[in-house]
Amino acid sequence: MSEIKKVVLAYSGGLDTSIILKWLQEEYDCEVVTFTADIGQGEEVEPARAKAEAMGVKSIYIDDLREEFARDYVYPMMRANAIYEGEYRLGTSIARPLIAKRLIEIANETGADAISHGATGKGNDQVRFELGAYALRPDIKIIAPWREWDLNSREKLMAYAAEHNISVEKKKDGKSQYSMDANLLHISYEGGILEDPWAEAEDDMWRWSVSPEEAPDQAEYVELEFSKGDIVAINGKAKTPATVMAWLNEVGGKHGIGRDDIVENRYVGMKSRGCYETPAGTIMLRAHRAMESLTLDREVAHLKDELMPKYASLIYNGYWWSPEREMMQAMIDQSQRHVNGTVRVKLYKGNVSVVGRKSDTDSLFDERIATFEDDQGAYNQADAEGFIKLNALRLRIGANR
Amino acid sequence: MSEIKKVVLAYSGGLDTSIILKWLQEEYDCEVVTFTADIGQGEEVEPARAKAEAMGVKSIYIDDLREEFARDYVYPMMRANAIYEGEYRLGTSIARPLIAKRLIEIANETGADAISHGATGKGNDQVRFELGAYALRPDIKIIAPWREWDLNSREKLMAYAAEHNISVEKKKDGKSQYSMDANLLHISYEGGILEDPWAEAEDDMWRWSVSPEEAPDQAEYVELEFSKGDIVAINGKAKTPATVMAWLNEVGGKHGIGRDDIVENRYVGMKSRGCYETPAGTIMLRAHRAMESLTLDREVAHLKDELMPKYASLIYNGYWWSPEREMMQAMIDQSQRHVNGTVRVKLYKGNVSVVGRKSDTDSLFDERIATFEDDQGAYNQADAEGFIKLNALRLRIGANR
Amino acid sequence: MSEIKKVVLAYSGGLDTSIILKWLQEEYDCEVVTFTADIGQGEEVEPARAKAEAMGVKSIYIDDLREEFARDYVYPMMRANAIYEGEYRLGTSIARPLIAKRLIEIANETGADAISHGATGKGNDQVRFELGAYALRPDIKIIAPWREWDLNSREKLMAYAAEHNISVEKKKDGKSQYSMDANLLHISYEGGILEDPWAEAEDDMWRWSVSPEEAPDQAEYVELEFSKGDIVAINGKAKTPATVMAWLNEVGGKHGIGRDDIVENRYVGMKSRGCYETPAGTIMLRAHRAMESLTLDREVAHLKDELMPKYASLIYNGYWWSPEREMMQAMIDQSQRHVNGTVRVKLYKGNVSVVGRKSDTDSLFDERIATFEDDQGAYNQADAEGFIKLNALRLRIGANR
Amino acid sequence: MSEIKKVVLAYSGGLDTSIILKWLQEEYDCEVVTFTADIGQGEEVEPARAKAEAMGVKSIYIDDLREEFARDYVYPMMRANAIYEGEYRLGTSIARPLIAKRLIEIANETGADAISHGATGKGNDQVRFELGAYALRPDIKIIAPWREWDLNSREKLMAYAAEHNISVEKKKDGKSQYSMDANLLHISYEGGILEDPWAEAEDDMWRWSVSPEEAPDQAEYVELEFSKGDIVAINGKAKTPATVMAWLNEVGGKHGIGRDDIVENRYVGMKSRGCYETPAGTIMLRAHRAMESLTLDREVAHLKDELMPKYASLIYNGYWWSPEREMMQAMIDQSQRHVNGTVRVKLYKGNVSVVGRKSDTDSLFDERIATFEDDQGAYNQADAEGFIKLNALRLRIGANR
Repeated sequence: MSEIKKVVLAYSGGLDTSIILKWLQEEYDCEVVTFTADIGQGEEVEPARAKAEAMGVKSIYIDDLREEFARDYVYPMMRANAIYEGEYRLGTSIARPLIAKRLIEIANETGADAISHGATGKGNDQVRFELGAYALRPDIKIIAPWREWDLNSREKLMAYAAEHNISVEKKKDGKSQYSMDANLLHISYEGGILEDPWAEAEDDMWRWSVSPEEAPDQAEYVELEFSKGDIVAINGKAKTPATVMAWLNEVGGKHGIGRDDIVENRYVGMKSRGCYETPAGTIMLRAHRAMESLTLDREVAHLKDELMPKYASLIYNGYWWSPEREMMQAMIDQSQRHVNGTVRVKLYKGNVSVVGRKSDTDSLFDERIATFEDDQGAYNQADAEGFIKLNALRLRIGANR
Repeated sequence: MSEIKKVVLAYSGGLDTSIILKWLQEEYDCEVVTFTADIGQGEEVEPARAKAEAMGVKSIYIDDLREEFARDYVYPMMRANAIYEGEYRLGTSIARPLIAKRLIEIANETGADAISHGATGKGNDQVRFELGAYALRPDIKIIAPWREWDLNSREKLMAYAAEHNISVEKKKDGKSQYSMDANLLHISYEGGILEDPWAEAEDDMWRWSVSPEEAPDQAEYVELEFSKGDIVAINGKAKTPATVMAWLNEVGGKHGIGRDDIVENRYVGMKSRGCYETPAGTIMLRAHRAMESLTLDREVAHLKDELMPKYASLIYNGYWWSPEREMMQAMIDQSQRHVNGTVRVKLYKGNVSVVGRKSDTDSLFDERIATFEDDQGAYNQADAEGFIKLNALRLRIGANR
Repeated sequence: MSEIKKVVLAYSGGLDTSIILKWLQEEYDCEVVTFTADIGQGEEVEPARAKAEAMGVKSIYIDDLREEFARDYVYPMMRANAIYEGEYRLGTSIARPLIAKRLIEIANETGADAISHGATGKGNDQVRFELGAYALRPDIKIIAPWREWDLNSREKLMAYAAEHNISVEKKKDGKSQYSMDANLLHISYEGGILEDPWAEAEDDMWRWSVSPEEAPDQAEYVELEFSKGDIVAINGKAKTPATVMAWLNEVGGKHGIGRDDIVENRYVGMKSRGCYETPAGTIMLRAHRAMESLTLDREVAHLKDELMPKYASLIYNGYWWSPEREMMQAMIDQSQRHVNGTVRVKLYKGNVSVVGRKSDTDSLFDERIATFEDDQGAYNQADAEGFIKLNALRLRIGANR
Repeated sequence: MSEIKKVVLAYSGGLDTSIILKWLQEEYDCEVVTFTADIGQGEEVEPARAKAEAMGVKSIYIDDLREEFARDYVYPMMRANAIYEGEYRLGTSIARPLIAKRLIEIANETGADAISHGATGKGNDQVRFELGAYALRPDIKIIAPWREWDLNSREKLMAYAAEHNISVEKKKDGKSQYSMDANLLHISYEGGILEDPWAEAEDDMWRWSVSPEEAPDQAEYVELEFSKGDIVAINGKAKTPATVMAWLNEVGGKHGIGRDDIVENRYVGMKSRGCYETPAGTIMLRAHRAMESLTLDREVAHLKDELMPKYASLIYNGYWWSPEREMMQAMIDQSQRHVNGTVRVKLYKGNVSVVGRKSDTDSLFDERIATFEDDQGAYNQADAEGFIKLNALRLRIGANR
């Protein structure tokens, strides 16, 4: 074990990170700074302060990062229509780089030489935290207790907590068998019966949305206004990124929108099964694509589609703070200059249906040309012959072979 | 106008292609061979025979191509998870290469030197028919009446029909304002009020599916069995490709599944708005991705995802019969060797939810490794440190700069 | 033939465009504005003035565009390492968008409603001129005489020239059988015996470079200094883009550098054979890659390599003035921030060998880490085990299947 | 240290692997099987037998793998035109998967539970050996002494050798300061003064080729005959893959061909500088591209070019035995059906110039169409107008915005 003077811990206030806090103090005999963030997980963050104080922590950081998270992480990612493996909306992935950044900022402010986190050695989150941290401060030391200690079972953890007087609160709803993560973009579930990919998720697992069956029998229409690819108003009312997302989470959840049940490929090499609720994200992505369908040039759209899987993998794998992500972002952001207008969606029992899209300033939809009616010469049908003939030329030469 | 001896016409039996039939006889003074195919459009094809005979056609081809269409066109495309521009399931696009192929086969059999079709000069279908025809017989002559004649309004067409005694049947439901196309994979709608992309499609436009609102209140579970990426059985019962699709269209349509409303980019350079019902295709694609999620290696899956947009564009643009599509298909088919197993989906009011997936022979999901519980040493968490450290090395060197 | 009031002609002063000038005056009965540019083709442009005046042209534009060409077209392309089909350095392709832009600017200044050019209907240049023109002024009319007129043989052209008193100068060296094009980046040869791809190009065809056999027996070393991916100095002496290129053309040509003999795929669908001399471009590209090898992050470099063929095709096909090219350029330019330093090359009888590269500010080459000697702990070899183990995990699970 | 019963060692017979042999016997107290392969490195392999026997090895494998290496590894890679980072011809990378495969085969034959190799913890080769081994036998144990032992300096190694009576032969030419690797495809140099990327490689480092300066003053022409993308004959004489390569190495080396001096990005995250001589590979790649330029469809060629960097990275990083490489290979091999014909190259003082290419059966070069002379109507120039107009349509609509 290397010499550590001061370590910044990503501290939720929950049992696991409280044990880590204590363990760091004991094993490394160093000062621990705690950092707790509100990124929209829907739980109070202030209680973490008292717990940290009780364990003798002097530097306690508690930040409300909701706007920063929505504006600087979720929104840029939405511009890319990012989806990992055709299904996963990257809810956990996109929050980690922000946490990593704050850990390093706090380490710099407090003169700490290390950071620590509560992610296990099997998952993607350790990678995301640590790649971000190394990219932002290459000499940082990182302590990942789950990869180091021998508290590798629930029993040992409980024994350690008891031994060190760490209070084990009963969870309010007691029974959660799942490993969960939540932020403004989503809540996720892993473990428990989900470890059998054939088993259907149980109804009472889901927390943010009602089932489509329980959703209202009445559809709801929503108009989303875009500026440069970002949603800036809903139903004519301007909103900040975080309030856009909070509003859409509530309305989407009410209509049973955004549940996903996926087997995904982790960066560390294994498949895992996760269930996700992403109400706002599901609506945002659908609407963004619709806005682009009206305002984006075809080849720009196709290029974005071809590069999207790579961009999504970068975020999934933890490379937000990498030069290749920044390079791709420069391209994506450049493409969004004209993505302005309004999309109208219908929400009904799990469905997000795009029913209209318009753009006063940037539509590339030209009714005069596209019409089945007489187009007054806007398009010369005879041009199609030459177009086809030259596109066919190489095929014809090939067929002659 | 070049000299034409005999022309094979893609003949639906409807008004437009009947006018074309007559027009070809008149203008080109040549023999016309008609070709009518059942590709699952849900309309009788036999009536076309009497109409053709009435116009003096001697060679009449009427083919049931449903199994060939499903097996050799739709199924290979599904292996690629092909979606154009994130939304369009390529229902019309994938049928055209089969028609092109039959037109050329019939031309070869009957000694015809030309083919003809009823696609307009503004759309993608002319391109798809003609690229296919040129690729399969480079010296074929192609007559595209809509690009040649001056019957460029409904009135002129009607006048021509009246003048030449072509019977104008009233459509049963009279009022369709839409340009439609149908086959086993989908039915499409364009034109009419859809030409305003802000206008919501009217309820009575849709023909194959009920609305989610009208769908049953009871969900239905379906088990789809895959062999090498293809669905070969439903609920334990073996089915041919065409019967798989017919069954899923019926069940999917009943549950309000597969409606899309899209603004898309045509190959000829304009944007157009289309509405589509693709019940079977929507279920098949969802299930196929789920089957792959369990049985496909991560990097294979990612490579497929990166290439999919290009593959989909090839089909959309009419390049089915091209060497680059064949080359990609070789790769895609090679990847499907292990895509075997069963996917369970839940259908409910427009939603297709994957709720389980299993594969006795080919699952790559290893519960021993993925578990949150004690994994008995199947995975060494300490390995993650080295993995992260080396992946971070270039980022750290870059940050030092 | 549509009504044309005034047309801007890309006028070289040579026979072909002089015939076009006259033909436009005669056939379209309209005013012709001539535009002649020096883009480094190595021929005087002023003589075009007298010829145009002699044919009654009142608006005559003669521009020295060498710096603009090098700075705004060649340099940005070099940042992308663009090569078409693995061999072609895009010498002709990259000059056309500049000509198209000036044609439209002059049309706007002079109130012209049309432009015209001397490119044939078989080549890429017509596409490049016209796509550029349409992108910059969508309502422009374009007259492409070679696609319209019946002067489709050398005899008819000569007869037309004689009939209209257009002077036919004997070329100084008389015998050129080739179709040629030249600018600061290259000189190209097509046609003649090159139409047989098995025939070796004749020695006396080449004009800008000596053969390797005739090049000096003594190698020459050159140091090229880069700033943000652009060459800004040679052998310690600051130079503008155009003077960089002129200098390297001379030195490269002296050492027999930059000859290529290629069969390429034209955008219009046929293969053609071309020979090219690109002395400066060959050196610049080699050196740029070497500079990047030291200063670019691995993943940034790989992403650039994966996208380069698409970028090169865009330029080859005439899409410089397209949103997708601009979008890619944004990404490429962003990547070049750190491409600063010096590359040392050795020129000898056709070879450009990179022999050294350095960057005081931006090198990512870390001798402490890369060394075969004792690295003092800069790199922990044990990390490699975890790195390999986790990268192997999916392969091992797959092999267990 | 885990329990090992029997280990197969990749044994060169040199000092380092002899020390490893002894060290394995001592530290692991297990039986060692040696495996020595001739893959064209140009050194005798039989002497390894006596050395192994002297150290008590009972199972000794000495294989001539030259034909297998050329036929099953180099040739398939050449079909892809694989180049890593624009410069590196993958000489070392492509040999490792074959060694890994033989190590596992021998382990299976001899009942060994482990393999071992002499690659260091900083390089790519450890990754290539081990990924291959794990992919082919997921439960194999791997001993990488350089990552384990404390013999981390030349002095300690020498002391260990002396202590254990391992003979330290003086290298014939004594002075090599470089780390080298050789096989039929190349010889490589790293370390020594090359660790300064600004320093020019010394003349006496290079072993396989003369410098261009010392090469003959007379050019040599060579005709290479291809069948399905593979070279099968030279100057009209049929040859096996390995004899093709040996012949081209000799002739290429004589003419100073195939020297490269590169800074490359290792998979483990650092940049390193290497010098390579790849005479045969340089000629083969040039010729293969030329053969493809005549016989490959444009879009097939472009797709290959877009995927090539990924394919090259897979090989560089050690993923030959991965499903994604196999999937890409299926596509690449499919594309080579028509790559038949002959390429004529001129070799002169470091230059490989393609001067002719022909294919009686598969050329797509159509002189009738491409000609600048009267083409007798093979190509209709008027088609170009429609082709351009429709390709411009989206640009014009965009410009109207």
